[in-house]
Amino acid sequence: MNSPAAGQPATLSYDQAGVNYDLIDPLKVAAQRAAAATAGHLAGHGFREVQASRGESAYVVDVGPFYLASIVECLGSKALVADEMQRLTGRSWYAGIAQDTIAMAINDLITVGATPLVVQAYWAAGGSDWFGDAERAQALVAGWKQACDTCGVAWGGGETPALAGIVEGGRIDLAASCTGIINPRERLSVGDRLAAGDAIVLLASSGIHANGLSLARKLVERLPQGYLTPLEDGTTYGEALLAPTVLYSPVTEALYKAGITPRYCANITGHGWRKLLRHPATLTYRIHTVPPVPPVLRFIQQQAHQDDREAYSTLNMGAGFALFVRAEDAERTVEVARAQGVAAWVAGRVEAGPKQLVIEPLGIRFGDEDLQLR
Amino acid sequence: MNSPAAGQPATLSYDQAGVNYDLIDPLKVAAQRAAAATAGHLAGHGFREVQASRGESAYVVDVGPFYLASIVECLGSKALVADEMQRLTGRSWYAGIAQDTIAMAINDLITVGATPLVVQAYWAAGGSDWFGDAERAQALVAGWKQACDTCGVAWGGGETPALAGIVEGGRIDLAASCTGIINPRERLSVGDRLAAGDAIVLLASSGIHANGLSLARKLVERLPQGYLTPLEDGTTYGEALLAPTVLYSPVTEALYKAGITPRYCANITGHGWRKLLRHPATLTYRIHTVPPVPPVLRFIQQQAHQDDREAYSTLNMGAGFALFVRAEDAERTVEVARAQGVAAWVAGRVEAGPKQLVIEPLGIRFGDEDLQLR
Repeated sequence: MNSPAAGQPATLSYDQAGVNYDLIDPLKVAAQRAAAATAGHLAGHGFREVQASRGESAYVVDVGPFYLASIVECLGSKALVADEMQRLTGRSWYAGIAQDTIAMAINDLITVGATPLVVQAYWAAGGSDWFGDAERAQALVAGWKQACDTCGVAWGGGETPALAGIVEGGRIDLAASCTGIINPRERLSVGDRLAAGDAIVLLASSGIHANGLSLARKLVERLPQGYLTPLEDGTTYGEALLAPTVLYSPVTEALYKAGITPRYCANITGHGWRKLLRHPATLTYRIHTVPPVPPVLRFIQQQAHQDDREAYSTLNMGAGFALFVRAEDAERTVEVARAQGVAAWVAGRVEAGPKQLVIEPLGIRFGDEDLQLR
Repeated sequence: MNSPAAGQPATLSYDQAGVNYDLIDPLKVAAQRAAAATAGHLAGHGFREVQASRGESAYVVDVGPFYLASIVECLGSKALVADEMQRLTGRSWYAGIAQDTIAMAINDLITVGATPLVVQAYWAAGGSDWFGDAERAQALVAGWKQACDTCGVAWGGGETPALAGIVEGGRIDLAASCTGIINPRERLSVGDRLAAGDAIVLLASSGIHANGLSLARKLVERLPQGYLTPLEDGTTYGEALLAPTVLYSPVTEALYKAGITPRYCANITGHGWRKLLRHPATLTYRIHTVPPVPPVLRFIQQQAHQDDREAYSTLNMGAGFALFVRAEDAERTVEVARAQGVAAWVAGRVEAGPKQLVIEPLGIRFGDEDLQLR
């Protein structure tokens, strides 16, 4: 499907949408090496890093009675959609944006088995006047508070700098840091117990979440009605894009209370379903059940003339989080998630074999060469 | 001194330099209230916040065997000086900028008695091309690594987003998050033991550090030679501004090893010496010894036609960090700091009396009404 018809614009890839990883990646590699070389400092305090957490979504330190996990995460460019939609609809969308920002940090932190405890806010505005729009500022505060309530975390504090000359006028750069603990220690899930026979449970996304927005914003240029373009379900494109990211920590906390410890977790963000290949082990991930695709993601795929392979390699396509659990825990994992209001599916299984992801219903295969994160 | 002569530009205050706290403060108050209301969530995990840390420089949670402290801090606008100096001198100044960014987080975190364990990097560039300047990118990485080495912290990871449309082209928004523990628990220093009779030890700054840069940049417009204006010590204004912020955690860690637990600490950043009034107790802080003023700060004071009261209420004026210790520990605190290469002075004492800071050698008094942080 979706091969470009004659006269139509060509396929729009993520790189074409403005993010050039060839320029960023050498820095990332240098930074990762330098960062890894600092791990020995922990010994001076009587601690050690969990080396397997290097390259994972959150960094883990063994502090004795439990593990400590920490992270800082950026919202990305979703705030630009909120700004444009505020202009078009006259109301603020920043309550949802706050949830998105916290979700970026929380959903990464929980992949290692951590219970999030404290969130810090990083709200860097292009000038003091950003905070002068009281409705927008209050929406940001209220949404941040509500997301903390949902996740049972304490909002510790944060920074609200006015950075004229660095952040663009009228814009805000949003990020969240999160600290948590892995307690009891057996909850640590950095994948060392992941094995053939395990089940793959996928948790539903609410839409695009906060990854792929550069592409989504680029597409607006092709739409005569822009963000107000109606989708098949009656919502507008802009409204659908701004559906807040699902917060998955209520699910992982409920799983612990139900006695289920995931072997591994993957937060499906940038790189789409290729994130299922995140773990370094040589294993095959075979998907037999594909969750329904949210209308906004199907719309983006169609408008960008992406085939399924490109779409699933970029967007979450309806699955925001993957839990790798023992096969006998799979059905109960789905039930626990649903009891938390999050749709879930036993979607596949882990098999012995080459490192690859096979999405059988769609005839797609991603190999090890398709995801280089470390 | 420094009253404006006829025909000279008038005094330049911090507000005039572009940061309008009247717009930011209502949001800050709303955020602080909402944040405080989330503290109860910790009980669900069997923990509790250290309420006295609300309004302090770092947020503290009691997790049982020790306390957990966390923070996120922004560099601010100092990177703009580095960008301009790179244009003027042809070399990158980002190694020092990296240290500044980490110092913003570390120097706040240690005020509560924490040992910093993990730093996360937040490097949000205006576009992928920022990372294409290899010399600058490598300087940032090398400086970040070196600051982690100095502080004995592990660099856990971080974010390097390209945020075109949010961060200005060619610019970078830098921040650091830091997590640490207060161990043993007796190291907690949120000021409950602060008392009349305690000594105030001031630690030397290296210059402007990373607060007051909006003012410092504004002054450049008045200087015919701009950042290349020579100071009395032969360095240029730009070079002196870019002296990296002192990292104070080696001092606080050495104090612990020497058996000295500060009663309270204040990181002297925005609001200058008014930060000595940070603690909510009703006490008088009487300064009898004022550290030498770094040439770059004296230069700013003179160029901005600020009297001493204005200068000390805005800039660190040579004192980057204040330790409040028992009187009998004061001299040894100075020795421990000097052994770490940080100049220090027994500068004053805590007295019973109204909440005020009296800088006797300069005839300056700041009252409670001069600092509203909570």
